[in-house]
Amino acid sequence: MFALDLIIKKRDGGKLNREEIKYFVDGYTKGEIPDYQASAFLMAVFFNGMDTDETLWLTEAMLHSGDMIDLSCIPGIKVDKHSTGGVGDKTTLVIAPIVASCGVPVAKMSGRGLGHTGGTIDKLESIPGFRTGLSPEEFISNVKDIGIAVTGQTGNLAPADKKLYALRDVTGTVENLSLIAASIMSKKLASGSDAIVLDVKTGSGAFMKTVEKAEKLARLMVDIGRGAGKRTVALITDMDRPLGNNIGNALEVSEAVDILNGKGPDDLREVSIELATNMLFVAGKGDNEFCRTLAVEAIEKRTALNKLMEMVERQGGDPKAIENTSRLPSAQFKAEWRAEKSGYIEKMHAEKLGIASMILGAGRKDKDDVIDPSAGIELVKKPSDKVEAGETIAILHTSDENRISGAVSVLKTAISVSSNPVQRQPLILGKVQ
Amino acid sequence: MFALDLIIKKRDGGKLNREEIKYFVDGYTKGEIPDYQASAFLMAVFFNGMDTDETLWLTEAMLHSGDMIDLSCIPGIKVDKHSTGGVGDKTTLVIAPIVASCGVPVAKMSGRGLGHTGGTIDKLESIPGFRTGLSPEEFISNVKDIGIAVTGQTGNLAPADKKLYALRDVTGTVENLSLIAASIMSKKLASGSDAIVLDVKTGSGAFMKTVEKAEKLARLMVDIGRGAGKRTVALITDMDRPLGNNIGNALEVSEAVDILNGKGPDDLREVSIELATNMLFVAGKGDNEFCRTLAVEAIEKRTALNKLMEMVERQGGDPKAIENTSRLPSAQFKAEWRAEKSGYIEKMHAEKLGIASMILGAGRKDKDDVIDPSAGIELVKKPSDKVEAGETIAILHTSDENRISGAVSVLKTAISVSSNPVQRQPLILGKVQ
Repeated sequence: MFALDLIIKKRDGGKLNREEIKYFVDGYTKGEIPDYQASAFLMAVFFNGMDTDETLWLTEAMLHSGDMIDLSCIPGIKVDKHSTGGVGDKTTLVIAPIVASCGVPVAKMSGRGLGHTGGTIDKLESIPGFRTGLSPEEFISNVKDIGIAVTGQTGNLAPADKKLYALRDVTGTVENLSLIAASIMSKKLASGSDAIVLDVKTGSGAFMKTVEKAEKLARLMVDIGRGAGKRTVALITDMDRPLGNNIGNALEVSEAVDILNGKGPDDLREVSIELATNMLFVAGKGDNEFCRTLAVEAIEKRTALNKLMEMVERQGGDPKAIENTSRLPSAQFKAEWRAEKSGYIEKMHAEKLGIASMILGAGRKDKDDVIDPSAGIELVKKPSDKVEAGETIAILHTSDENRISGAVSVLKTAISVSSNPVQRQPLILGKVQ
Repeated sequence: MFALDLIIKKRDGGKLNREEIKYFVDGYTKGEIPDYQASAFLMAVFFNGMDTDETLWLTEAMLHSGDMIDLSCIPGIKVDKHSTGGVGDKTTLVIAPIVASCGVPVAKMSGRGLGHTGGTIDKLESIPGFRTGLSPEEFISNVKDIGIAVTGQTGNLAPADKKLYALRDVTGTVENLSLIAASIMSKKLASGSDAIVLDVKTGSGAFMKTVEKAEKLARLMVDIGRGAGKRTVALITDMDRPLGNNIGNALEVSEAVDILNGKGPDDLREVSIELATNMLFVAGKGDNEFCRTLAVEAIEKRTALNKLMEMVERQGGDPKAIENTSRLPSAQFKAEWRAEKSGYIEKMHAEKLGIASMILGAGRKDKDDVIDPSAGIELVKKPSDKVEAGETIAILHTSDENRISGAVSVLKTAISVSSNPVQRQPLILGKVQ
């Protein structure tokens, strides 16, 4: 078998078989197939696509390219959740405690922010003392003992994906459904959970700009999960505007705690409960309605909040910062951004708000940038809200006053006010199972 | 400007501008753009193509990436000719002397064989003593003095093409009209002639398998030549069967000499005269009919043969080997391959005959293989010829008896005999100007 033959086969619209895909992935991971052949192959895949079989085999080959976490020593059906990423998406901080407090073990590996805003790990690190670099043993024993652990990646999971993703990033071959699905699912499957809930975001702040595309990606990932013998469900949720009111690491932890206290914004509560419901469902807790009741009660009875505090304490963090979120890092400078005219908030472009938030210090422009945990944006108004001229729309948080003007100039292009009333858009746009 | 943006622009079907293409070619040639980005770019071009403008700009950028031969000190309109390559194609050996003997300077750089059979340079080197490595000064002074020189590449012509071609070869991005056209034309334009005749081969032994594709390539190359201010004409000629009866280096020189002696096979004579006519035409010698008369007379009066002997002598070769071709290297072993049944020769698959010839020693499997100048195949019969059972169809020439059986097994699959009469196919299939 030669790499060149596989490039040409895919280029000419052929279907690769399991052995061919394994040969390519293994060869590339080991450095036997050079970058320039891999990138030509990826571009051929970009144009001619892969069918479900090929995508499954690609996932499988990437999954087996490195370590695979074995969670079988933990009793019960372990559930994992993955979001394709969005601005203000702090649902993991809400739903992991909900699900764990309902008796379903959550052994979750999360990432740092790749795009403009921080990832779950960055958010958790804004809690004073919180350790996100658990050893595999500690990770498993925490889940065994208290039913929950959230850590950065432990072990060398799917190194083929890491290498391929880096190459895709610089060769214009990111935006292909099969490559995206295999990248996400190889890591999820390597993480060892028994069931998976996927949150596929769609809209201006998401990678999938349309519901149609999001549904295709969701379908493909659910098929891959099923093909690997895992119960898998995907929700399509809105990311045309940010989720919740807060963007930025400590700000998002604070908002997640609000939800677990029965407060906080409606949109974040709705999406969180829907995701938690589905996680409980794939864990076999009962039908959808029953699982929803469990999730709602976990909030009302504060069992989820207590579970979060338990996890924070166990991972070296200060649970008092959860009890009283004013103990979280707080920004030195706060600037209010006000409406120039009266009307209704029409658009809040999620991606642009993410960029503004990054400018304030909440995300990384380059891989080695240091995050300011206190930085970010608090949205006082959300789309469809009525606003009077001079009223505050957003509050900018930062430790570096010089960053405010740059953030404001992006904010201006991100938010629009209409004279006419604006209808509220639905949040849950579909479900694939 | 970033390479990634150009990859994405081409990937998404955009048209690149002159500066963007120059940036990419220069960056790649200098090693500032890595192979993996160049191969992704080439694959995007493979799928989305380039229009005539882009192809012209690509040619221009590749042309200016290295040395350009200046022939302006040689008086007259210098004419070059390029063949896309085929089996038994020895037309350069015939037409360069014809054209030069009509007073049109021929300063020709030729290559070694890339595929199965030798290139013009390999063929000329079968003439005892012939030197193909002329210095630029010697090359130009020979053309000035005797109107003709044929040499291997002198100087560093179109290094961008060299680097890109090597990458295309291992990344499945060879078969794209724009890339092929720019590769050929950048080298032709760098060679400094004023007018160009292109011989685009089509059929089983050619890169362009159909007349349609050959015409598209011809159109593109003629447009590029014109765009660069050169008179350019392309002929589409048949390569469904080998050209002439002889395949192999000394065998082909011998056959070329036959033509210049007014003998030799009709097909080779016809294509050679047509090409020479067009070379004289683009050199401004007169209308087509007049140019044809000049070409025919150059053969009849032996002026072309004398010109060839003059060139051979000037380049250190033995002109007696042209006067008497039995002085050319001759194979130690000759094996006759005979018809198993009576009938008519139906097919002679050119590419397979090239492979059989390579097996006998006439070409290179690997870049460093040494060519046996005496090896090759003499076709006693050609397509449409009548053949009796037991009659000789081909004679295999080689210095290594062990190679015969391998060559015969390929030959069997290359030649078919039909019980029904077979029609002769036309040789000149089109003209683009």
